[in-house]
Amino acid sequence: MTFLAGCRARQAFDLLANTWNPVGLHALRHGPRRPSELRREIGGIRPKVLTETVRRLEASGPVTRNAGRDRVEYGLTDLGRSLLDPIDALGRWAHERGDEVAQA
Amino acid sequence: MTFLAGCRARQAFDLLANTWNPVGLHALRHGPRRPSELRREIGGIRPKVLTETVRRLEASGPVTRNAGRDRVEYGLTDLGRSLLDPIDALGRWAHERGDEVAQA
Repeated sequence: MTFLAGCRARQAFDLLANTWNPVGLHALRHGPRRPSELRREIGGIRPKVLTETVRRLEASGPVTRNAGRDRVEYGLTDLGRSLLDPIDALGRWAHERGDEVAQA
Repeated sequence: MTFLAGCRARQAFDLLANTWNPVGLHALRHGPRRPSELRREIGGIRPKVLTETVRRLEASGPVTRNAGRDRVEYGLTDLGRSLLDPIDALGRWAHERGDEVAQA
């Protein structure tokens, strides 16, 4: 698999270039959530940042917004669900070796 | 695996937040390379950007710099090699579905 400067892989990494994006996708792994539920799941995220994150993910395709009479929910699209495995692979790596990056 | 705002996973994603980082790591997968070799492997990267990338990766731990009498080479540390699998997982995803992100 070749990695060239202007290639598709860069689009994927661009999607993860904002560190809240994978966190947001991961928080939707068990199904649609309301913003308040997402804020509880993602400790430390400010409401404004959460709104920006889900809108960015909605615009690029991995997330969909469902507005009901009295509630809004965000959920993963098929594209979003397909991202969970690579995100988990990176999350596992971070869990095992993330500290070494911090100490460098 | 919980993803919390200030957690290790974010350090890993921060490492990949600059889209040249995974490209640089991937280009070193077959062993140490000189800057000129890296530029050939990574189509489209400007020398200045390459230098910034390898220095950033050296500072955070995944890459090491070996300066010989008349040449400089960059290579992966053990930490860097351990990142290749998650990077490949994301690269495969991009290859298969990267176009859908662009169209969103």
